[in-house]
Amino acid sequence: MPARFITLEGGEGAGKTTLSLRLATALAAAGVPVLRTREPGGAPGAEALRALMLHGGVAWDPVAEAMLMFAARREHVAKTIRPALDAGIWVVCDRFADSTLAYQCHGHGLDRTVWQRLAEVALDGFAPDLTLVLDLPPDAGMARALSRGAPDRFERMGAAFHARVHAAFLAIAEAEPERCAVLDAAQPPDAVFAAAASAVAARLGIAL
Amino acid sequence: MPARFITLEGGEGAGKTTLSLRLATALAAAGVPVLRTREPGGAPGAEALRALMLHGGVAWDPVAEAMLMFAARREHVAKTIRPALDAGIWVVCDRFADSTLAYQCHGHGLDRTVWQRLAEVALDGFAPDLTLVLDLPPDAGMARALSRGAPDRFERMGAAFHARVHAAFLAIAEAEPERCAVLDAAQPPDAVFAAAASAVAARLGIAL
Repeated sequence: MPARFITLEGGEGAGKTTLSLRLATALAAAGVPVLRTREPGGAPGAEALRALMLHGGVAWDPVAEAMLMFAARREHVAKTIRPALDAGIWVVCDRFADSTLAYQCHGHGLDRTVWQRLAEVALDGFAPDLTLVLDLPPDAGMARALSRGAPDRFERMGAAFHARVHAAFLAIAEAEPERCAVLDAAQPPDAVFAAAASAVAARLGIAL
Repeated sequence: MPARFITLEGGEGAGKTTLSLRLATALAAAGVPVLRTREPGGAPGAEALRALMLHGGVAWDPVAEAMLMFAARREHVAKTIRPALDAGIWVVCDRFADSTLAYQCHGHGLDRTVWQRLAEVALDGFAPDLTLVLDLPPDAGMARALSRGAPDRFERMGAAFHARVHAAFLAIAEAEPERCAVLDAAQPPDAVFAAAASAVAARLGIAL
């Protein structure tokens, strides 16, 4: 079986990190070599860009910021994700291109054609085999995110912003049902994992 | 008269910095408010990207590197160049999008459609009013560049690379004769400046 690329998407506090750990552990227990990673970041150049975007003190032009996100993604794919897949290692990634579409375009109003052109340049058709969209009402997600400590700049955007992002993830899943599976992330972690395992079994043919 | 955007292009050691200083001084002496800047860099975010590209220790994927260059350019235009022009200040810039085409595409073999798409996203039709292309045989340029001290990574690429870059700048000028003027940069600095002043007078209608 070829190695598969699984992405986890969803708003703040939806449980992506928890699910990523559970999923990678279950894959490893099933004898599947697996690498966990996350965006922005996941390769040295991409991590440097992550630091610059999150903590560089620059109020980036929105198009420049989207370009940096896709440059980091390109680096992540070229240096980490593709080499892992080529070596037979499955990849579980917390956030990918859908997050840029949801946050920058639907959240911040960036022109969607900018996203489309950058995705073409950076990814050239490369896409996840399965995207698990964690569906959690924004109020619940924000409460969870805030309870974890200091909010970063993505977490300070307000309720209307997060409502647009939440709706965007569901719209992406609806537009690409073959790639995406929506999970009810308001459930307890065990139930979210069970739903994810079902999706992995149904879409990728491996029992966890 | 609206403020104009003048770029200086050409290989290593062609005399761009010297000409930029002369040109800005002459414009100021003629009563024209003027800002000198250079790429990569020219705005805080762009300078941070410049440092990351030149000294970050990352062997960037070529497409990711081109995306970073255009992200820095977008930031430079948005934060420095456009605001200056809008305020009636002329801008003289050492390197711009032509350098990415010459170095990354002609020099390093990056697909030109990547350059084209990134230019569309980052610049959206914004272009210099006049580009002065400093034409110096690569051997002479490299000798000048090396005599200035430690070569940076652009200056360590070898003769064939710099020959391709040199030919690329001339091809760009040939393809866009209304925007570009080619100056013989093997002349002494006074003669190069005189040729530049002629081009500025002829193209932009101001005597220096």
